Amino acid sequence: MKIGLDIMGGDHAPAEAIKGVQSYFEQMPDAPVHVLLIGDPDAAAPYLPLIEKYSHRYTFVEAREVIGMHEHPTKALKEKPGSSIAVGFGMMQKGMADAFISAGNTGAMLVGAMYSVKAIEGVLRPTIAAPIPRIDGKFSCLLDAGINADCKPEHMVQFAQLGSIYSHHVLGVESPKVGLMNIGEEEGKGNILAQATYPLLKEASGINFAGNIEGRDVFYDKVDVIVCEGFVGNVIIKMAESVYDILKVQRGVQDDFLDTFNFETYGGTPVLGINSPVIIGHGISHAPAFCNMIQLASKFIETDLIGMFKKHFKQA
Amino acid sequence: MKIGLDIMGGDHAPAEAIKGVQSYFEQMPDAPVHVLLIGDPDAAAPYLPLIEKYSHRYTFVEAREVIGMHEHPTKALKEKPGSSIAVGFGMMQKGMADAFISAGNTGAMLVGAMYSVKAIEGVLRPTIAAPIPRIDGKFSCLLDAGINADCKPEHMVQFAQLGSIYSHHVLGVESPKVGLMNIGEEEGKGNILAQATYPLLKEASGINFAGNIEGRDVFYDKVDVIVCEGFVGNVIIKMAESVYDILKVQRGVQDDFLDTFNFETYGGTPVLGINSPVIIGHGISHAPAFCNMIQLASKFIETDLIGMFKKHFKQA
Repeated sequence: MKIGLDIMGGDHAPAEAIKGVQSYFEQMPDAPVHVLLIGDPDAAAPYLPLIEKYSHRYTFVEAREVIGMHEHPTKALKEKPGSSIAVGFGMMQKGMADAFISAGNTGAMLVGAMYSVKAIEGVLRPTIAAPIPRIDGKFSCLLDAGINADCKPEHMVQFAQLGSIYSHHVLGVESPKVGLMNIGEEEGKGNILAQATYPLLKEASGINFAGNIEGRDVFYDKVDVIVCEGFVGNVIIKMAESVYDILKVQRGVQDDFLDTFNFETYGGTPVLGINSPVIIGHGISHAPAFCNMIQLASKFIETDLIGMFKKHFKQA
Repeated sequence: MKIGLDIMGGDHAPAEAIKGVQSYFEQMPDAPVHVLLIGDPDAAAPYLPLIEKYSHRYTFVEAREVIGMHEHPTKALKEKPGSSIAVGFGMMQKGMADAFISAGNTGAMLVGAMYSVKAIEGVLRPTIAAPIPRIDGKFSCLLDAGINADCKPEHMVQFAQLGSIYSHHVLGVESPKVGLMNIGEEEGKGNILAQATYPLLKEASGINFAGNIEGRDVFYDKVDVIVCEGFVGNVIIKMAESVYDILKVQRGVQDDFLDTFNFETYGGTPVLGINSPVIIGHGISHAPAFCNMIQLASKFIETDLIGMFKKHFKQA
């Protein structure tokens, strides 16, 4: 399988991206993965010696333009066809890459995912899923993590289905429990959206609905898949990040659980519900994050997650 | 001034309520505050010796019924006119109490606040404000904290105004900065509600609007008043509580900032926008929380906060 990696994306590009590839090759000596390093050869040059001995496991794809973190996504993708993100999506369209990873401009990644890769037939709104650390040492998956800010109940049901299939096949959870983020425990609680979503989740196919959860349950093992609309999801994730940033980074608090909040090492957030695997990394991604993202992408392909999604939404 | 206190409300009633009164009397030897202890004299008897020497500073008001934490609010208030909560609101209606405090059934407190005390003329939706700890050692005030789950932009503007007046007069912040909780920094970001609220906040009278804030800014000193609809507000507060519960209570993490998350010692959440001061305590309130709530109520009265609200919304 061929995995495209934008080495120009993120605050620490291209050094950390290439170091991440190095880690991946070291950790997975026999993986049938060929990495396509997409980026500026001059910027990459100082770091390429790190992966010199794995030259048979990667191909360098030249892309001399870069879409900056604050550029307008649609405009930038149009005006910079030679950018690493545009080249990456182009390679997927031509069947030259089976997945694409970038820690670059999130908006541009989403535009590419929606308009170049496109939604799977039957999926109303593709979504992004974020890992949430839990006190039992595992991770829940929260979706939508911030791209769908005004949702209808039927979108929420699809988030639950996409999240359950992802959690089962990629994260290996047997029968993932789905929780609806709400502001009360009983059915009938919450805002209009939550009230309307609850009965639909009870009836929905292919999910194991466990009822409402509240803000206080986020870090517990009550559920494996947390369903919420993107506004709330985004607030939750950014608050969790700041807890780590304040307590660990700024104040030096030593705690094993707090350490699992380190978003710099995460494997990025996958876009779920589109026709190819696309993974969006955090701007602050370091080498472990890039390594994890390659692993996540290979798992997407290996488990035929996209095929599972297609099957589910064709039947539905 | 006469402050009514429901001594039967909360998980540690009446012991902690009476201990809180004791602390208040000790700390404020000259405050012109007379406390009305409302509750069951038999339940209170073992603890009354604690405040024996302050007998001139309080009056015991018998209320032999109690509304349980899980009773239906409207039904319970109707069927238990002799309950401490019903008696408390009754005393306010008769002008026998200037404020009312309870850590009991939140729903019953809200029903009493809305239907017995009633909204100030011009206030569309009374709200509750929660204190949010900040890394600078101060507290922001977040509203709505969970009672208004489906809001319109004009409700959000009033939350900003109520919060600003409260922050200035009661919390002593000179020109409180107001932040709109959102999922992006620039104007135009967010869901439909946030997009429509932003321009109204820019134009609104009597507030110092500082723009959008995100989940990552909650614990910083970017703003003094955080405006959001109650669904998001409730998730934020319960998440913050669980961070304290997990890291401090369960895992014993020692950190000064984390200590400020101790919701057991907080002064409760005031209901803003109604005709009398009503403060709702957390079910887990301990003595310091009751002491703080009495202090908060006296500040409400002393600063004529209700008068300030009435003036603002009459002009508006």
